[in-house]
Amino acid sequence: MPREDRLVTEEPLEIRVRVGALAPRRAWVTMRTPGHDFELAAGWLVHEGLATPDTLAQVAYCTDDDLDPEQEFNVVTVTVTGSAAVPHRHVAASAGSSACGVCGKDSVADALEVRSATPWSGERPAADVVRRLPEALRERQELFARTGGVHAAGLATADGTLLVVREDVGRHNAVDKVVGARVLAGEPAAAACLVLSGRVGFELVQKAAASGIGSIVAVGAPTSLAARLAREAGIELWGFTSASRAVNYC
Amino acid sequence: MPREDRLVTEEPLEIRVRVGALAPRRAWVTMRTPGHDFELAAGWLVHEGLATPDTLAQVAYCTDDDLDPEQEFNVVTVTVTGSAAVPHRHVAASAGSSACGVCGKDSVADALEVRSATPWSGERPAADVVRRLPEALRERQELFARTGGVHAAGLATADGTLLVVREDVGRHNAVDKVVGARVLAGEPAAAACLVLSGRVGFELVQKAAASGIGSIVAVGAPTSLAARLAREAGIELWGFTSASRAVNYC
Repeated sequence: MPREDRLVTEEPLEIRVRVGALAPRRAWVTMRTPGHDFELAAGWLVHEGLATPDTLAQVAYCTDDDLDPEQEFNVVTVTVTGSAAVPHRHVAASAGSSACGVCGKDSVADALEVRSATPWSGERPAADVVRRLPEALRERQELFARTGGVHAAGLATADGTLLVVREDVGRHNAVDKVVGARVLAGEPAAAACLVLSGRVGFELVQKAAASGIGSIVAVGAPTSLAARLAREAGIELWGFTSASRAVNYC
Repeated sequence: MPREDRLVTEEPLEIRVRVGALAPRRAWVTMRTPGHDFELAAGWLVHEGLATPDTLAQVAYCTDDDLDPEQEFNVVTVTVTGSAAVPHRHVAASAGSSACGVCGKDSVADALEVRSATPWSGERPAADVVRRLPEALRERQELFARTGGVHAAGLATADGTLLVVREDVGRHNAVDKVVGARVLAGEPAAAACLVLSGRVGFELVQKAAASGIGSIVAVGAPTSLAARLAREAGIELWGFTSASRAVNYC
């Protein structure tokens, strides 16, 4: 099967959370593109409200005894301090796919819950900068160029400088990875702009609200619920963005 | 906000499962496009191995006392007979997004589990039929034509006749809906061909294997794990399909 190397890789990643001295618990399973796994785990915990940059103590591949050796690099354990801040119900077995972003909720009400950071108060990209961002993102999508089957997310400044770009088979993973990359590098999670290669579902705006993002610039369409949440959270939302147009939803 | 009516709708759906005389339990939460909710619930249960066409006793909007009236049409209860066939661990709280397909698993091993129906033994679409299918699907994508932000799935015969088409903000939901539509209509879940408007992740091939699908024809790219599972399950997989080309992965 000579085409195999042109396909984007998809493997499961299990995230375990250890709170203080307690035994680690399975928190989430997602299908993801391997690489930047620690960033993915760190970003996911921050977006779920399970950790802050200050309470993330350690991220490591898991060496627990129950683990099949071939899965060793598919399981990450995150150690978090300050257990009082972690709602117990969140650290429980649940699972997602490479396309899944709101796992860990156990009812309709929980799925709609929003954890908002302080809203962005700095500058936001103007329309001419917005229209340039998808092409700038595309130029750094190395996996997409090779496979055509992967999403990308980027964090950018108001003048359009891309701070970090990550790719993943799951669009929500790419967003977790860019924010996790900033947090693990000691940089703020909040940024003027989140750039997305695809569509904008509710769960991506949830993540942006939790990180304190100012604007979302997407190549694809938003959903109705995504547009409503962006408006409520004070996030500027651009969809169907290309060099020649961009639709401003709020 | 005059553009709101052009956005695809996204709302949470909670699926509860009642096994025999036991109280209903929350089984899954997904973000979905409202409409064909009973088909979505029925198809999801069949794909998860929680029900067969024979054990699906009833599908109804939920009237349990714990429910906020405004969420009444966002919660569906499915009654299943033959409790012995339902693994208890599957009927437990877990949640997904509109892009989520393998929820209900609680570890890396479970996420990779495959429930295979009898492999398809009938005819499969030839290459010229395959290349026509995406356009045939597109002609029936009413929501996509209006919003540009929604996936579609269809079931087709070997000669390219579309049996049923459904759209949803989540690609896995669209697949659950087409199979659920067939099952609720008393038709077989298995079909010669599953047509997909987007990419092919692992969880979509999992569903196709559980339904006994012969071929998958997708407009987008498959992942590495999707291609491997299709090969192992005896499913013919076509990606990057258009009127002028189609790539056969196995």
